[in-house]
Amino acid sequence: MPRENFRFSHRLRVRWAESDMQGVVFNGHYMTYCDVAITEYWRELCAGDAAWLSAIFERMFVVRALLEYHLPARFDDELDVCARVGRIGSSSMTVLFEIYRGDEHLVSGENIYVYAEDGASVRIPERLRAALRDFERVAPL
Amino acid sequence: MPRENFRFSHRLRVRWAESDMQGVVFNGHYMTYCDVAITEYWRELCAGDAAWLSAIFERMFVVRALLEYHLPARFDDELDVCARVGRIGSSSMTVLFEIYRGDEHLVSGENIYVYAEDGASVRIPERLRAALRDFERVAPL
Amino acid sequence: MPRENFRFSHRLRVRWAESDMQGVVFNGHYMTYCDVAITEYWRELCAGDAAWLSAIFERMFVVRALLEYHLPARFDDELDVCARVGRIGSSSMTVLFEIYRGDEHLVSGENIYVYAEDGASVRIPERLRAALRDFERVAPL
Amino acid sequence: MPRENFRFSHRLRVRWAESDMQGVVFNGHYMTYCDVAITEYWRELCAGDAAWLSAIFERMFVVRALLEYHLPARFDDELDVCARVGRIGSSSMTVLFEIYRGDEHLVSGENIYVYAEDGASVRIPERLRAALRDFERVAPL
Repeated sequence: MPRENFRFSHRLRVRWAESDMQGVVFNGHYMTYCDVAITEYWRELCAGDAAWLSAIFERMFVVRALLEYHLPARFDDELDVCARVGRIGSSSMTVLFEIYRGDEHLVSGENIYVYAEDGASVRIPERLRAALRDFERVAPL
Repeated sequence: MPRENFRFSHRLRVRWAESDMQGVVFNGHYMTYCDVAITEYWRELCAGDAAWLSAIFERMFVVRALLEYHLPARFDDELDVCARVGRIGSSSMTVLFEIYRGDEHLVSGENIYVYAEDGASVRIPERLRAALRDFERVAPL
Repeated sequence: MPRENFRFSHRLRVRWAESDMQGVVFNGHYMTYCDVAITEYWRELCAGDAAWLSAIFERMFVVRALLEYHLPARFDDELDVCARVGRIGSSSMTVLFEIYRGDEHLVSGENIYVYAEDGASVRIPERLRAALRDFERVAPL
Repeated sequence: MPRENFRFSHRLRVRWAESDMQGVVFNGHYMTYCDVAITEYWRELCAGDAAWLSAIFERMFVVRALLEYHLPARFDDELDVCARVGRIGSSSMTVLFEIYRGDEHLVSGENIYVYAEDGASVRIPERLRAALRDFERVAPL
C-alpha cells in the first residue's frame, strides 16, 4: 500500500538498545513501534478527550499480529510508522502498519484488535466507529 | 496443532518487566520468547558443534512473523515454548511455535526465516536439511 | 565480594535481543537480570508459601540502583547472578548482586528496596526479618 | 540539582510496554531513557558532524550507573530527561541526569563513561573537551 494512503504517521528514532549484534533492529521491537504509533493514532482521534482515550487504551487487545520484514532498520534511523484502521467488524478491527525510512519501505504489519470489557469482547461503540469513518476519509473503510 | 506433535520445547518464566499494566505479557515479548526457544532448538540440533551453531545464529533472518494470542500469560508464569521446523524451501524455512502454560494453549506463532550470507539468501546447506529431517522424525517434513 | 559469600545464585542465559551493536549486553538489561535473580531469591526464601511470595512482590520497590560494569557479557553467555540481602533497616533493605560468567566477575550491583503498602513505607515484618536472618546464615547480617 | 542547571533536555513519552503491573515504569527502563538522552546530547554537541557523532557512539562505554528513584513515571507520561557532563577526567567523564514530569522531579542518575578504542581506555580527545567546555557554559565544569 503506498504511503500516501495513510493519513496518520508517527516518527520515532531507533534506540541503541533496540539494535542487535547484526547491527539491525531485533524483530520484536517493531511490535513496540507499531504499539507506539497506534497509541498516537488514538490520541489524535480522541482530540483531547482524555477519558475517551483512556477507555480505548484499556479496552483494546491484540489477538493477532503479523509483521513482514522487507529491509532492516538500524540504530539512530528515523522511522515513520504509518497506521490506519482498515476494517471494522462487530467487536474487532484490523489495523495496517507500514514502516518507512524516508522513501524506503522497511516493514509491513497487520494487527487485529478486539474491543473488550471485563474480559469479554463487546461491540465497538458507535462513537468510535463514527470517529474512525471520519478520520480515515482519504481511504474509505 | 496438539502439543505432542512437537519434539522440542523450552521452558521459561515470565519476568516482572515483561508484564504490563493490564497484568499480562506485552504482545511483543512473545517474539522474544520464540527467539529464545529457536535458539535452544538450534543448540539441541547442533549437539555441541559450536561453530555450526554460530553459523546458524549468524545466517538466519526472520522475514515474516505471525502471532495469534489465545490467552494471556502473566508475571511469574512458567511457559513451555514448543518449536518445530514445519517446511523447508530452497533458502527459507517455516518454524511453528506454540506456547503453553501447563495444558493451556496461550499463543501460536509461525515465523519464516531466510538463510543468508553477506546479505543475500543462499540455499540451506544439506547438512542442516539432513539434521532437520532426522530431528523432526515425529512429524515428517 | 567473593562469590562464595553468596548463598544464592540464579543462572540465566543472555538472549539475542539483549546484545547490542557492540556485541555486548546493553547496560540496562543487567537491571532486569538482577530483578530476575531477586525474584528467585524470594521464591526460595518463601519456600512454597505463594501468598507470602505475592505479598513480597507487591510491596518491594527499588529506590536506588547502582551497577558497576567490570567486563561485558555477550550473546548466549550463561551468567550466574548472585544475590544476598546485605543490610536491613526499618523499612528498607540493601541487596547486593554479583554477576559471574564462570569465574569471571562481570558486574557488581547494589539496590535499595523499600517495603511499602498503599504507597507508604512500612516496617519490614518480623517474619521476613527472621527468614532473612536464617537464610543468610553464611554471612551474618 | 535544580532543573535550570541543565542546558540540555530531551522529551520522550513513556511507552505502554515500559509500564509494569504496578502501573509504573520498570526501574531498568530509566537507563534506556538516559541512554536516549545522552545520544541526543551528543547529536546536539556534534552539530551535524556525522563522523564525529559516530565516533562518540562507538567509543563511549558505561562503567558505572547510579539511579535514584524519587517518584514513579507512568504510561503515557511525557518526561524531560535532562543531561549534563559534570566532570571530565583523563579517559572518563561523569554524566548527570535528572528526569522530570513537568515540575515533578522523578529520577536522578549519574553515569560514568570511559572513552575507549580497541577495548582500551584512551585520553578523551581535545576536540571533545573543548566542545564540552563550550557547551556546558551555564554550569562551568
